[in-house]
Parts: sequence; C-alpha cells; structure tokens
Amino acid sequence: MSLLLGSIAAPVVSNYAATRATSNSVAPYAAQPIQKPSSVSLSALQPSQVHQFTRKADTSTSSAQQASSSFYAPVGAFLAGCAVAMAGLALRMQNRPQPAIPLVFEDTMFTALAIGGTQELTEAPPVIGKDTDPSSLRRRMEAMLRKGQDKVCKAIEDCDGEAKFRSDAWIREEGAGGGGGISRVLAGGKVWEKAGVNLSVVWGEMPQGALAAATEKAPEYIKNMGLKPGERVPFFVAALSCVMHPRDPHCPTMHFNYRYFELDKDNWWFGGGTDITPAYLDEEDMKHFHGTYKKVCDKHDKDFYSKFKKWADEYFVIKHRGETRGLGGIFFDDLNDRDPEEIFKFCEDCLDNVVPAYVPIIEKHRNDPFTEEQKRWQLLRRGRYAEFNLIYDRGTIFGLKAGGRIESILMTIPETARWEYNQQPTPGSEEDKIMQLFKNPREFV
Amino acid sequence: MSLLLGSIAAPVVSNYAATRATSNSVAPYAAQPIQKPSSVSLSALQPSQVHQFTRKADTSTSSAQQASSSFYAPVGAFLAGCAVAMAGLALRMQNRPQPAIPLVFEDTMFTALAIGGTQELTEAPPVIGKDTDPSSLRRRMEAMLRKGQDKVCKAIEDCDGEAKFRSDAWIREEGAGGGGGISRVLAGGKVWEKAGVNLSVVWGEMPQGALAAATEKAPEYIKNMGLKPGERVPFFVAALSCVMHPRDPHCPTMHFNYRYFELDKDNWWFGGGTDITPAYLDEEDMKHFHGTYKKVCDKHDKDFYSKFKKWADEYFVIKHRGETRGLGGIFFDDLNDRDPEEIFKFCEDCLDNVVPAYVPIIEKHRNDPFTEEQKRWQLLRRGRYAEFNLIYDRGTIFGLKAGGRIESILMTIPETARWEYNQQPTPGSEEDKIMQLFKNPREFV
Repeated sequence: MSLLLGSIAAPVVSNYAATRATSNSVAPYAAQPIQKPSSVSLSALQPSQVHQFTRKADTSTSSAQQASSSFYAPVGAFLAGCAVAMAGLALRMQNRPQPAIPLVFEDTMFTALAIGGTQELTEAPPVIGKDTDPSSLRRRMEAMLRKGQDKVCKAIEDCDGEAKFRSDAWIREEGAGGGGGISRVLAGGKVWEKAGVNLSVVWGEMPQGALAAATEKAPEYIKNMGLKPGERVPFFVAALSCVMHPRDPHCPTMHFNYRYFELDKDNWWFGGGTDITPAYLDEEDMKHFHGTYKKVCDKHDKDFYSKFKKWADEYFVIKHRGETRGLGGIFFDDLNDRDPEEIFKFCEDCLDNVVPAYVPIIEKHRNDPFTEEQKRWQLLRRGRYAEFNLIYDRGTIFGLKAGGRIESILMTIPETARWEYNQQPTPGSEEDKIMQLFKNPREFV
Repeated sequence: MSLLLGSIAAPVVSNYAATRATSNSVAPYAAQPIQKPSSVSLSALQPSQVHQFTRKADTSTSSAQQASSSFYAPVGAFLAGCAVAMAGLALRMQNRPQPAIPLVFEDTMFTALAIGGTQELTEAPPVIGKDTDPSSLRRRMEAMLRKGQDKVCKAIEDCDGEAKFRSDAWIREEGAGGGGGISRVLAGGKVWEKAGVNLSVVWGEMPQGALAAATEKAPEYIKNMGLKPGERVPFFVAALSCVMHPRDPHCPTMHFNYRYFELDKDNWWFGGGTDITPAYLDEEDMKHFHGTYKKVCDKHDKDFYSKFKKWADEYFVIKHRGETRGLGGIFFDDLNDRDPEEIFKFCEDCLDNVVPAYVPIIEKHRNDPFTEEQKRWQLLRRGRYAEFNLIYDRGTIFGLKAGGRIESILMTIPETARWEYNQQPTPGSEEDKIMQLFKNPREFV
C-alpha cells in the first residue's frame, strides 16, 4: 500500500488499508480478448524529428474514416487525441456535402482545423515531441506526463491485481501536423471495469476560431501575437488525461487531465484538474480526496484550492439535469500568471497525487459487498457520466465530430451505462443523500 | 396477430407468426416500480382554451430546474418535449452567467427561445390544441397523432403481454407559450426493455434563429412572411415520436416521428419517418420493414420511397464512427409541395403502418434464443444508439441544453448501453456482416 502513496499522503490514508472479506463484483458480460492488427514499418511516415515510427496496417480508425466517406465527405481529423479533446480545441470538417438536415449550428462549431486522421504505431516512440533540447519545457512536460502515465498505470495494475493496461501508440497522419500519443487502456479488471490513461503531444497551426474554443483568452493571445484575421495560430500541446471506472458501486470513478499549451514563447498556459465521481457518499473518502488536493494546492498557492474547487463544481455540471457529474475536485485553465516553472511543479505535484488521493479509497472499498439495487444506481450514475461527456465535454464532442482517434476519446465513457425513465431516488435513501450533493455541491475540507 | 396488422400488411407478414420455444430474456437489474408524485388541481394554470388541466405538485422537472439554479442561472426551457426536440427547434438560455470555461459555440447554439419549463398534469386533457374548430388541420393532426399513439401503445402492450405504458401529461409553464404533451413509457416489459411514445402539441413565437434550426428552408419562410430581422416567428407544431428497445438481441429497435409545423396559413410543412435498428441482420425482416414502407410511399408518390430511404441513410449516420445507427427506413422533412391534405394522409398512412411494419418482426423473434455474446453485441450497438442521440440528434441536444421535459427527451436512450475500447467484430461473423451494412447502406427492396 505504501508504494501507492505519493509524497503528500493525507492524514486519513492510514484508515484506508482495511480489506474486506466479501467479493461480489458483477461482470454480466466478460470482456472480449482484444485483437491487435498486424503491423508494417512505414519509415516515410515519421515526422520531422529523429524518432522512427512504425505504423500499423489498416487501422480501425482509418477504415472507419474511409467507410464514412460513403455518407459524407471525409472530415478533417481532430488535431490530437483525447487529451487535446479535453483541452477543448475545435476543428473543421472540410468538403462537407449539403446535409439532408440543416446543420446550421454544427457548421458554426466546425470553425477550425484542416487536418488528417491518425495512424496506429506498433510501439511508442521514446519521445514524441520534436524539440531536440531535453531541458526545454515542452520536452520536460512530455517527460513528466509520461512518467505520470507510467506511475498511474502501474499503481492501478498493482491494485487491480489481475488486468494489465494495453498500450496503443499513434501519430497524426501526414499533412496533419506533427505529434501523436500513447493510449493505455485496462479493461475487464478485477477492480476496474475500464480504466484509461491517454497521452497526447501534438503541434501545428490552427485557425483562430479553434483557439477560441480552446481558451477564453483567445482574443488576448491573438492580440499579443499580432495575428491578423484569418492568420493561423501556431500551437503545441502536451496533455495527459485519465478516467477510471471501477466495478464496485462503493468505489468511485476518477478523472484527471493535465496539459500545457504553447502558442509562442510569450503565450502559453497550463490547465488541468482531478475530480471524483462516487455513486455513494463516504464523507471520509471525500475528506481524503479533497484534503489531498487541498494540501497540494496550499503548497503552491493558498488561493488555489478554493478557486479550483469552485471551478470544478461549475464545470462538471450536467446542465439539463441541474446536477453535477460527481463530487468535484479541482479544475483550472489558462494558468499563466507566474513563472511557468512554478506552474509546471504544481501540475507535477497534482499528477503525483492522483494515486495517493484515489487508490486508498479503492483499497478501502474494493471488496465492499453490494446489492443489485446499488449496482443499478451506479449504472444510472454512469448514464449521467456518459451524458456529461457526450453532451457537455466540448473537447469530446469536437473530437468526435471531426474524426480524431475515436477510441481514445471515448475511452472516457463507462463500459456500461443505464437510463431509466423518470427514475428518482427514494427520499432519505443513500442515493438521495448523494443526489442532494450533486444538486448542491459543498465543501469537504 | 391479425389485430396488429394495419391496412397495408406486407406479403411476408404471414411468415412472422411462428413462435419459438426458448425464452431467455436477460434483465440484469429489474426495473423499479415507478412512483407518481401526488397531484393538486391548479385551475389557474389552464391555457387560453376550454380544457381543464390538473397539475402535479412539485415535479421532478421543476425541482431539477430549481436545483440547477445554484450552478447557473435558470435556463429558458425548450418550447416542447421530445417530439419537438425531434423536429429540431433551437432555444435560448437566458441570463446565463459567465461560465468558467468559454462557451463560444454553445452561445452560438442558443440563439433561440425565451420560455419557461414544463409542469406535470394528473391526467391528459381531451384536446391540447387551442383551436375550437375540430375540422381544422391542426386539430385533426393532433387527433390523428393521438389515435396513432393509442394504437401503437395498445399493439405493443398486447405483444409484450406483461408490461403496460404509464402516461404522463404535461403542459408548458405559464408565460412559456401554449401547449403540452402526453408521454407514454413502458419499462421492464417481457419483450421490451423500454418503449416510449411521446406526443407534443405546442405553439407560441420563436426567434428566427430557432426557425433556422428547425428547417433548412427558414430564410424562405421568413421572406415569404415578410418578417424583419429580430421579429419573432409564430409557430404551431404537433408531433408524435417513439423509440422501442426490446430485450432479445434478435428483436430490432424501432423509432418513428411524425410532425406538422405551421408558421402561418401559407407557411407549413410535414416531417417524419420510421427507421429500424437491428443488432443482427435478418434479410427477410428488412425486406418486410422496408417493403411495408415502400408500399406506403408508392401509394402516395412513386418517388417518395427512394428519396426518403436515402434521406434516412444520410441522417442516421454516427459521423465520428463512419457508420449508421441502424438499417434505415424513411425520413423526410419540409414536405409542403402539394395539398396539405395529401401529405396528412401520407403521414397518417405511415403512422398506421408502424405496427404492421414492426410488430411481426418482434413476433417472429421474441423468443429467439441468444448467447451472452449476442446480448453484449446488442448493448454495444445501444451504446452507438446513445451516441447518435446524444451527439447528433440536434433536437435532443437543444432540448436537453435548454431544459425541456428531460425525461421525455431522454426516453429515447436505451435502458442499458455498453462501450468497450477498440471493440471490432470478428471478420466474417454475424456482427461483422451487419457492421458492413452500417458502413455501406444498401437497398432491401
């Protein structure tokens, strides 16, 4: 257990080691073994940098895109995978035919990028970024995120005890700009139904409309950079995003995303956050999770926690339901008000604390007995999770609509989700208790 | 069985009566009994018309909206329920606070209506529309749709043999314009996991931006009506929409929607369609379903079927997947090129043929044995169904974002849906066989 705890373990951590006797994980349909396509080496595909990429033949993504052209002209692909999707870049569908149904608003949404799709690789390159100087912030950000990816995946595998993460590396297609990513997904675990940790490191140029989707400070950046209307915006982004869906309804889902955006040397920012989505309230768990992040925040800036906690409560709202997706955490964006090295360290600290904030909660509850009704409630909350991600997570929507690496983007959707007509928790029940918190977020620390 | 067959029974119908021996429906979590809130009579709430509406106290919709105001200012509600959502009207969120994350595109999407929410009624009024003349097209459209709703619900209940539809009537809140609807939902049936048939009859005035979302011919209508920029558009819409999700993976999901829009006496149109979503291909089923609608179409216009079949194939595309939601049917909109009475009769015929087109397929397969793997494939396809509805069905999205009667709108989402990372059907399998058709739609008749 102590292996799982990072440098900022919260005081309650010692309470989380208790294991419970009963195991009754429910897996109505066992996961299918995953088939990997055969691979070919295509050296012509490598980006401008030193790394040799080996591309898989005929990937699902590209065949799906090919097939889709029978319905509508091939779409420009999203400029990156899931992590960038999280960052909320927008994109452009080119040569779209006149649709049968008017797409007034969708056209407005696709104000962005002209890019291709993604290609699978047989193995992850040692470095994705093109900078030759390993001490550059961009290279260090990639290295920090990759280290975080390894650390989180290792901890989850250790905790699960059965399933392993598969790793899929991909690069952007020729002409699509540079970069790629590494998607790591665990399915059919003993503890986790589905867990994914996705890295993206991509760069290129985007229309100003795309920047406006990525950040509310777009006009400021464009002005700073002296860009004329219509001029494209150079960008680089390195991001790591993660969603973990456990089986036991007493084990919460967890999500995080950390990213660094750079347009030029004066225009850059960090964004990210970690948040938790339980189906049942355990006050101590929430004190532990929020407490861990409060400590991380306090170490860097005494204002961070209250500000970023509120931001998470506002962002993760399923607006049509008038309820949050979960019980929050921290969320921030456009953070560039101090030395980037300081923010880098803050992000590193946040990422380092994913495991100590989350895994002890899972260790505590991994063997909790549960009823069919409790499993059903968890699945209903997963329906809400899917609703939020498919409807409100703008990055997800833009990524999907423009044909990014679909499987990386949709890794965030729970394996199973449930919707019932007019389902309401019984007043006073445990389900109702947490629902009140989804409707009215409060402080835990 | 013959009770279920309408006036245009297809020739293959007689082959569908065979019942099979084995029943192994899977219901991992049984449906909860639905609690109805207590009701109060609020006579002040009735619209300008003769009908007395009895409103339920403290409905979930209004309490959710109330709760939501702690996260963002109360949104204007959708001008109607699910049926109108299907018709694709847009709406406006008023007094929205500055969001933490830039909502550039969402702001663009909400160019529309200023309206309130919905209120539940204890019983459905005999007539929702406000016209006093029962021979008016609007009154007759409502009557025809209500007859269709009754007929479809009756046939589904008879076929299911166990579950019954519950009925929820609602009206638009005061100040929200006129009208309301009747949502009928069956859950936890023997044959159907979830089935809903929703009626909406609503009217009022909408911004021109909303009209642009409802029809691609908006500029034409606005010009015809001599409306100046900024002037609101009077409208009336009556619509019936339906989605049915059976349990057995060999029983297809079916959806239909028929609607009549009227802006003024010269500017009106009909829209609608019926489509089918099997998880497994049965050629004879598809010949029956498409054949039934081809016969209906041919009776009214020899060009209808090929045109509307193609339109369905283009509309029901999950663009990011490059595949259709199902195996199509017919879909049309802005139909106003002939005497409205003729189109009325066409819609009536289409609606009359929902049962003969669909129920025989269910009768044929209701007891088909199936494996866990087949159920799993069905749930994966239901994940696709949820993706389409939550991401591409513009009416659904607009309705949700603006706070319509959420439960009516989301009635269309399957009870259970599944997502697996990078799941691909085994080449040559039955799953692969239908996937090829999702990727490349073809003719069945």
